[in-house]
Amino acid sequence: MTFSQQSRRSLGLTLANGCLRILDQRRLPDDEIWLDGSDPDVMVTHIRELSVRGAPLIGVAAALSLACYAGQSPPPKDLRAAAARLRAARPTAVNLMTAIDRALGAYDHGGADALRSDALAIFDEDVAMCERMAEHGAALIRDGDGIITHCNAGGLATVGIGTAIGVIRRAREQGKCIHVYADETRPLLQGARLTVWELARLGIPYTLVIDSAAAVLLATGRVQGAFVGADRIARNGDFANKIGTLGLAQLCRIRKVPLYVVAPCTTVDLTVPSGKGIPVEERSATEVRGASGAFGSVRWSPADAPVFNPAFDVTPGAEVAGFVLDTGVILRRDLKDLGFLRRYNELLSRRAEP
Amino acid sequence: MTFSQQSRRSLGLTLANGCLRILDQRRLPDDEIWLDGSDPDVMVTHIRELSVRGAPLIGVAAALSLACYAGQSPPPKDLRAAAARLRAARPTAVNLMTAIDRALGAYDHGGADALRSDALAIFDEDVAMCERMAEHGAALIRDGDGIITHCNAGGLATVGIGTAIGVIRRAREQGKCIHVYADETRPLLQGARLTVWELARLGIPYTLVIDSAAAVLLATGRVQGAFVGADRIARNGDFANKIGTLGLAQLCRIRKVPLYVVAPCTTVDLTVPSGKGIPVEERSATEVRGASGAFGSVRWSPADAPVFNPAFDVTPGAEVAGFVLDTGVILRRDLKDLGFLRRYNELLSRRAEP
Repeated sequence: MTFSQQSRRSLGLTLANGCLRILDQRRLPDDEIWLDGSDPDVMVTHIRELSVRGAPLIGVAAALSLACYAGQSPPPKDLRAAAARLRAARPTAVNLMTAIDRALGAYDHGGADALRSDALAIFDEDVAMCERMAEHGAALIRDGDGIITHCNAGGLATVGIGTAIGVIRRAREQGKCIHVYADETRPLLQGARLTVWELARLGIPYTLVIDSAAAVLLATGRVQGAFVGADRIARNGDFANKIGTLGLAQLCRIRKVPLYVVAPCTTVDLTVPSGKGIPVEERSATEVRGASGAFGSVRWSPADAPVFNPAFDVTPGAEVAGFVLDTGVILRRDLKDLGFLRRYNELLSRRAEP
Repeated sequence: MTFSQQSRRSLGLTLANGCLRILDQRRLPDDEIWLDGSDPDVMVTHIRELSVRGAPLIGVAAALSLACYAGQSPPPKDLRAAAARLRAARPTAVNLMTAIDRALGAYDHGGADALRSDALAIFDEDVAMCERMAEHGAALIRDGDGIITHCNAGGLATVGIGTAIGVIRRAREQGKCIHVYADETRPLLQGARLTVWELARLGIPYTLVIDSAAAVLLATGRVQGAFVGADRIARNGDFANKIGTLGLAQLCRIRKVPLYVVAPCTTVDLTVPSGKGIPVEERSATEVRGASGAFGSVRWSPADAPVFNPAFDVTPGAEVAGFVLDTGVILRRDLKDLGFLRRYNELLSRRAEP
């Protein structure tokens, strides 16, 4: 079957007849508008402007966009240049870089056809990894738990059932009664717009809260666990995720409520020794001076208000109760005994066993 | 001088010719619109809808509104009924109740004239208390400090120079180089709208941040102190303040950054033994589903999204490095040694000494 005959479909991405389309996440939940993403430079814009977002999803979308482009048999240097532009579209999430490097590796060995097969494999593997994370993670949720989540780590952030939301969904499918507290996630409101949209579609009961209400939820016993995604995990377990994750993790720690990071192996960056090595994207001040999207555009602060707007923060691995990877779970005691890297390698080698 | 000949002016309130006007804080920073507040029932609406806000300011505004009404010589039962409606306009801040009870006490002893003098005295005392808090608090700020503040505890929250912002202003007047980080303070954005407006007017350098960025500011050493206001302080030092204060206090504690509560004595409620006894107002879900004000009105979440929207949270006194009162400072070690109440009484009696 040629690439053009292949089709793939996820909550936020479709591939059919060699044409890649992405759901414009800036316009959710009001409008469901699909945009073409077959051209790598258009995809770069979609990624930068957050029409496509979510660390695993941007990796898959970028690889598939490059695969579409490869079908036009561009000169290798043009393909490589397009790949470089995709790879640099956002600096924090490593899945993007991993996916592009892998697709280029395939291209080096087997040309356009190999690249295209590999991009499809990246999609399929992401789906499978979500399933495995859900399986591992659901065991950590008890019947009756209140769960807090930050940003969107769902089917809109991956091409499968999601990372953190995938775990919650699986626990619910197992018949556990769960209530989700969704942080709105300022400044771009991924929780208020995307997570609640997904939870409503899944029929999972939820409550929307402002980010700074987490301390009250924890203090009043409403929350028994926190599940978040990650954009990059360093070799020692430090990880970058949406701004607000660090504070949530520290508040959970104080209240002895476990916070779990749910991420596929593609999120682990073994070239980065610790969180200090993870670049954090700073975004425009206009994001903080107001809010804009399909819902309209408002500015409530002075137009010249000085702003500090890091898109991510870095949480020390020691703040985390556990990492739910597709290969298995790394708990805090594993981190203490072995360190993140050894336990990570142990899980990888176990998976390789027959 | 009769009441009608008296005039008073603050950043958010004016009294002249027996007529009380308040600056509509919902419309700041874009528009400076003044509303009449001479009628107690109109004032109730202004307080409920947050045109007038800030624990000390609503106390002063309510007492002056009642004083204006007293000038019409209403039957005592009508005046008492109006007072009761004012007193119940918002449940968390105790300054409102304290001011109304005091004004009614004056009325009982000396009729309308006594009430009117007392309302003016409440204004004047608030101004003086702000000055004393600023003096006590400024000593806690060092040259070069980064200071984080939450919500608006400035000249718009009092009739003087403010509580937390008054302290910062005084430190700046003393020549200390200070940089303020203003939490935007979702859902009603008092930080993003009001605090930055005040800081800009005062020429104090600031940076606006989303609420969940506090952990990064603390982790990266940008902040050496936190100053916040309070809506009610219980006998043991637990205090209610804008939602988000609890989390900020806990994050400060972890990082050993002192958080100071700046409030006049009128914020202390000796009838409430602990934070558990402070009623917390829950406000409309629409505040969280979007944002609205003079800047426009937008909704980014599904119109039926379930929301939990407490306007305040309660922080245990033990999380606090100190209370900056108009009578003096209560530090953590005082709390440990004496408890809040004994130290509070000690400061009160010291003030009474010649």
